[in-house]
Amino acid sequence: MPEFLELLPPSEALDVLLNNLPAVPLSIEVLKTANGVNRIIAADITAPEPLPPFDRSTVDGYAVLAADTFGASESLPAYLKLAGEVAMGAKPGFTLQPGSAGLIHTGGMLPEGADAVLMLENSQVARPGEIEVLKAVAVNENVLRTGEDVAPGDLLLAAGTRLRPAEIGGLLALGITQVPVSRPPRVGILSSGDEVVPPDTRPEIGQVRDVNSYALAALVTRRGGQANTCGIVPDRADALENALREAWKSNDLVVITAGSSASTRDLTAQTIQKIGRPGVLVHGVNVKPGKPTILGVCDGKAVIGLPGNPVSALVIAGLFVLPVIDRLLGINTARPDATVAAHLTVNLASQAGREDYVPVRLLATGEGYSADPIFYKSNLIFSLARADGLVHIPADATGLPANAAVNVILL
Amino acid sequence: MPEFLELLPPSEALDVLLNNLPAVPLSIEVLKTANGVNRIIAADITAPEPLPPFDRSTVDGYAVLAADTFGASESLPAYLKLAGEVAMGAKPGFTLQPGSAGLIHTGGMLPEGADAVLMLENSQVARPGEIEVLKAVAVNENVLRTGEDVAPGDLLLAAGTRLRPAEIGGLLALGITQVPVSRPPRVGILSSGDEVVPPDTRPEIGQVRDVNSYALAALVTRRGGQANTCGIVPDRADALENALREAWKSNDLVVITAGSSASTRDLTAQTIQKIGRPGVLVHGVNVKPGKPTILGVCDGKAVIGLPGNPVSALVIAGLFVLPVIDRLLGINTARPDATVAAHLTVNLASQAGREDYVPVRLLATGEGYSADPIFYKSNLIFSLARADGLVHIPADATGLPANAAVNVILL
Repeated sequence: MPEFLELLPPSEALDVLLNNLPAVPLSIEVLKTANGVNRIIAADITAPEPLPPFDRSTVDGYAVLAADTFGASESLPAYLKLAGEVAMGAKPGFTLQPGSAGLIHTGGMLPEGADAVLMLENSQVARPGEIEVLKAVAVNENVLRTGEDVAPGDLLLAAGTRLRPAEIGGLLALGITQVPVSRPPRVGILSSGDEVVPPDTRPEIGQVRDVNSYALAALVTRRGGQANTCGIVPDRADALENALREAWKSNDLVVITAGSSASTRDLTAQTIQKIGRPGVLVHGVNVKPGKPTILGVCDGKAVIGLPGNPVSALVIAGLFVLPVIDRLLGINTARPDATVAAHLTVNLASQAGREDYVPVRLLATGEGYSADPIFYKSNLIFSLARADGLVHIPADATGLPANAAVNVILL
Repeated sequence: MPEFLELLPPSEALDVLLNNLPAVPLSIEVLKTANGVNRIIAADITAPEPLPPFDRSTVDGYAVLAADTFGASESLPAYLKLAGEVAMGAKPGFTLQPGSAGLIHTGGMLPEGADAVLMLENSQVARPGEIEVLKAVAVNENVLRTGEDVAPGDLLLAAGTRLRPAEIGGLLALGITQVPVSRPPRVGILSSGDEVVPPDTRPEIGQVRDVNSYALAALVTRRGGQANTCGIVPDRADALENALREAWKSNDLVVITAGSSASTRDLTAQTIQKIGRPGVLVHGVNVKPGKPTILGVCDGKAVIGLPGNPVSALVIAGLFVLPVIDRLLGINTARPDATVAAHLTVNLASQAGREDYVPVRLLATGEGYSADPIFYKSNLIFSLARADGLVHIPADATGLPANAAVNVILL
């Protein structure tokens, strides 16, 4: 297999793949903002109006002229006449004159003439209609000025941002009840193998049920893609080409688990080559598990051949399929992936020059977590179900010693 | 406010809340396994059959009797007669006799009589119908025995486990095409405040749009709850009681953002007290932001009063609403939350004895990430939208020094 002589590391292989994908304009759909959690904003959004829309008090207290309170203290209070009370949700019914104060609640609108709010606990009622000021306040103290949060025209969210609860609240605060978001990429998923049968059938002896299609579909769905399982293809050139071509036509990205034997993988590569240009870009990646990965682009759409081993298929899909989905979604944030800090329970050997991903179980210790590797034979389907996450061993390491600090990528 | 004199730390407050919730049997619904990603398994699931269902080869090579290969090496090969080829997906058409070998592909069924597989690269064809064995193999080498992954009756998934892609694949490998999962808890969400209007209306002067209902609904949805926004209630005892009672009737958990002023918060607590027993359990928590939090249980259902400040509301919902959702979902896994390791850019002060959650922006540095705190005035809605995550300052710290290592909780 000459293709395997010079294997790219995963990050370089991904670059080759992404660099051959056109920066296509995303398809955009318009959604109710309230239903948009986890979706990706598809166009820059700017503020149509100021937030807050009026000067607001941030505390319960008295709207005052700061100058009227200068020098006031518990031992030497200032005295202000009570001008009225600001009702919530309404324009104050009075204008504040020097020497007076208006009762105001948190979120209430500052009356005209006031420039600060004295906290309730720094005041007391002197006599009906008059208050004692026990502490001086500065101009703008306990006040949010109009537009202090957001000014009209401010960039609120750049295209490519994922909507989280905070963004949804913020957009609705500005009356932005609909948002343009990117359409979920359609990901066609094929399994190949003469021995593979659908999960709802009883396998004949020698057959096994399809695992990869549905595990991959779940992975795609969780990432925000639209998974389309396209069935099981026998290991025959014509059948494979037809199925791949159909999947390619109706999807934005095609993933095929390429069977387990070397001949099946070669057949997959040959077929990808026929679907479109430039065809196979990478055949074999310097990573374990997942060496026999095939990365291709056919006339603008990525076509990825994953190893048939279910562990390899999921790990490799994480390295190559998910980044393509992110690209098609237009994600532009550099927010890092969250991990769990842990210490390895045992030494982990690795071949220098190759990256490894090792499934681990996380065990709570007194001070944190330990990461206990799961050693598994090829094709043990439940290996990953038994794991909490993966530990990455970089290419320049010949392994990791017991007790090494690692960042576990949750599955 | 006497209730505030002895404030519980958040973890103790949460214990009080959870300990007063009945360990109700979960409502269960049955779902197609393929559609189950992120759902919570509601009953233990055991294996109905072995996996793999037959002895399988894990490599391309020759099925052999290990004993026939003992002592074989490149310099002293053993010779075996070719007995046939195992077709994928079928029972082998031959039984292996001593002194012979059968061509087999990865995933193929081991023929009767064979007990190991010789890798293709450790063999060569001597002459038509005969192969050279260049390396000895041990019994079971390169073979997955029937039930080696999963034996019939094995516990596959305990009730309370979240379905990830690996679990979905594993269940379908065993023909388990439907699973019992817990019904998403119905979470009723109310906003209170005379100044609050729905997001799709143009506020009159002095009014603001409802932020919290939709931010909280998004948070609930993301966690696997079913969010029901129940509208905006004016700050009047009768209106609040009616609205809260209605929400309580038709939901499993009720959340109300209790308005921003002290009087509104007191009114909320008094109303929760009227809805059912035992009523308010905690009024005030020793945390910033979020001190004026109200935790109650009314006749078996949690009723939580959140601060009106949008930052506080989201932070506190993370501390109290999400754990109640997890409880109602029946989640039993102790899998830790993933975080991003970073170093603080500046000193962060904190009051000893109080826990703080500080919004931070993550900035990529050469070696990792730095966490840059976002200092915000109360009620700045976009504070959290500008943040990547939160840094937790524990109660026993009087702050964190610049360059301290922190684990950032992504928002």
